[in-house]
Amino acid sequence: MAPRGLPEPVLIRGTGLLGTSIGLGLRAAGAEVYLADPSPSAQAVAEDIGAGRPYRGDLTGAPGAAGTPGDTGGTVPGTVVVASPPDVTGQVVIDSLLRFPGAVVLDIASVKGEIQRQVRAGVVDGTLSQGQAAQYVGTHPMAGRERSGPVAARGQLFTAAPWVVCAGEDTAPEAVAAAEEMARTLGATVHRMGAADHDASVALISHLPQIAASLVSSRLQETPAASLALSGNGLRDTTRIAASDPQLWVQILAANAPDILQILYGVRQDLDRLISTMEDPSAPGARLDIAQLMAEGNAGHARIPGKHGAPPQAFAVVTVIVDDTPGQISAVLQDVGRAGVNVEDLRMDHSAGYEVGMLEISVLPGRKQELTDALSAQGWKVV
Amino acid sequence: MAPRGLPEPVLIRGTGLLGTSIGLGLRAAGAEVYLADPSPSAQAVAEDIGAGRPYRGDLTGAPGAAGTPGDTGGTVPGTVVVASPPDVTGQVVIDSLLRFPGAVVLDIASVKGEIQRQVRAGVVDGTLSQGQAAQYVGTHPMAGRERSGPVAARGQLFTAAPWVVCAGEDTAPEAVAAAEEMARTLGATVHRMGAADHDASVALISHLPQIAASLVSSRLQETPAASLALSGNGLRDTTRIAASDPQLWVQILAANAPDILQILYGVRQDLDRLISTMEDPSAPGARLDIAQLMAEGNAGHARIPGKHGAPPQAFAVVTVIVDDTPGQISAVLQDVGRAGVNVEDLRMDHSAGYEVGMLEISVLPGRKQELTDALSAQGWKVV
Repeated sequence: MAPRGLPEPVLIRGTGLLGTSIGLGLRAAGAEVYLADPSPSAQAVAEDIGAGRPYRGDLTGAPGAAGTPGDTGGTVPGTVVVASPPDVTGQVVIDSLLRFPGAVVLDIASVKGEIQRQVRAGVVDGTLSQGQAAQYVGTHPMAGRERSGPVAARGQLFTAAPWVVCAGEDTAPEAVAAAEEMARTLGATVHRMGAADHDASVALISHLPQIAASLVSSRLQETPAASLALSGNGLRDTTRIAASDPQLWVQILAANAPDILQILYGVRQDLDRLISTMEDPSAPGARLDIAQLMAEGNAGHARIPGKHGAPPQAFAVVTVIVDDTPGQISAVLQDVGRAGVNVEDLRMDHSAGYEVGMLEISVLPGRKQELTDALSAQGWKVV
Repeated sequence: MAPRGLPEPVLIRGTGLLGTSIGLGLRAAGAEVYLADPSPSAQAVAEDIGAGRPYRGDLTGAPGAAGTPGDTGGTVPGTVVVASPPDVTGQVVIDSLLRFPGAVVLDIASVKGEIQRQVRAGVVDGTLSQGQAAQYVGTHPMAGRERSGPVAARGQLFTAAPWVVCAGEDTAPEAVAAAEEMARTLGATVHRMGAADHDASVALISHLPQIAASLVSSRLQETPAASLALSGNGLRDTTRIAASDPQLWVQILAANAPDILQILYGVRQDLDRLISTMEDPSAPGARLDIAQLMAEGNAGHARIPGKHGAPPQAFAVVTVIVDDTPGQISAVLQDVGRAGVNVEDLRMDHSAGYEVGMLEISVLPGRKQELTDALSAQGWKVV
């Protein structure tokens, strides 16, 4: 039952949203899991919801001399998952490598280069042996929520999410195998990538969207309610992630500052260009310049892959008007199921002040007409 | 059957996405609708899908002298809906006021101040009489799609959408009544607002998100596919509207340049602040400054109203794991319906490379536990 290739027991250091979710998922897969968090209350919540048993060893003192575990309370972990806040992750990784010789140590922080550098620096300054450093592997599960803390945790948080594994040249094969096994056990898909490529990637696909959502939302602070009442899905979608935790994001942005800065310089250049064009929108070439900027947005957007890695915009949308009463949406989708058509994506589109909504059902393009006919025949308003 | 208070027949000038959708919706409500578009092919498509009959009059020559309709082909419209591209809307409005004395003339362009100014300028320079100008009312249906053109039109496009009506001080009451009647007939909710307030509002809730989505997407143009494969809903949501039509947006942005500029100056200030902080992220106060910026994003985001004008974040989310096979989602929602719980919002959360997804069902917070229990009892994986 327990996952092969993942040395047990597993000690999770840090019981926030991600650490607790990993504990829940590993326990569900039959693994032996121990939990440790500097906050007794966070740890207690994680234990209460079944993410693992309390680790009884002492993690507060200095780790034992190399090759000598400290006070383990009788539990010597085979794998340590460092799920601490990003800004102490490097330090907890090194502590774990020293404290638990032979254990695989992996972390799950959102930025990988800086932690890898800290481990390498430990080898250079003699804190860590080459062999100890080889037991470390950096990983990054691309999952999260707008909510944080162990209460928001769920064992299936990583289902279908990418999980990046950043092995270095010197990383021990069994460490990489353990990380990949854990990711697969939790239902994620493994992506192998160097730390530098990873950090450049997340700067663009994760950190930039977060910054943009925050910058847009920040402008809404003084907006009259009558204006906000006109808000549609455009604003809602663009700003959804602006609800994220500032304390967490400070650490992420600070850790990946160089990569993010390169991107922000490009954004500022585009923004300056747009501002100076819009300061004189009737000047020759001004409109062409704005159109060019929008077209560049089109071109970039078209490169984002769709569901299951499918080419973008590969699906056709069938839109059905539904009342806002219990059972309406299920009734529509029941008829979709009867028609034998698979729902590739689903979205409710609605707006303030009205008690109906539009259910947008994405299907393979070849099935659109068939589904439209089937739903219309059942009396649904397909638009 | 025909809408009361909306003088007929209705002539729609411009058969793009919005004009054609209005025609479809008004015809479905029993109104007599004529269509005219400078592009014969666009007009033919609109006619073919049932948006109205061709207008036989001549709209190409100069309008008749005030009080004398030009060549109407025997059809004198009671209401003219100007659905031309934004940058010619003012001109077509004035042409319509001159050509069809006594008719109510309304437009549906996304920016209202400039068109109102053009109509007032017509009174000042003697082109229009006070009485003619009073027949004009500016409106803005807050609906649209990432796709454009008559083929994408649908009669229910405006269902549940806000429709802003910007009457001036001198606007004739019957013109306002006609505009509001049309909006309600098409299923929209009427919001009365001055043109200046409208333009400032849409700069913030519509034009800024569009610009942000385009700026973020633009950065993706050169991104390696391996990086984009890590994309999640954060990037997808933030950039969805970047797929919009550049030609249309050039006109919108140019028409609302002063209001948008004020906002972009604020964004640039925040961006400059973020960049200079991130250039030295370990300086004293740097992290506090980043956290402040994120917290401002939280604060602005929290002000966006939820569905049906409800307070933001008023719903609890129940997440269910579903396989990617036909009927799964409908089966879940059928069980939701049986539990008697109303679905307030719905979202598929999934990611590239994996054949399962998470169905996020938003419900009133008081119903969450009940629904979780009911679905778990039916064997669903609720996480």
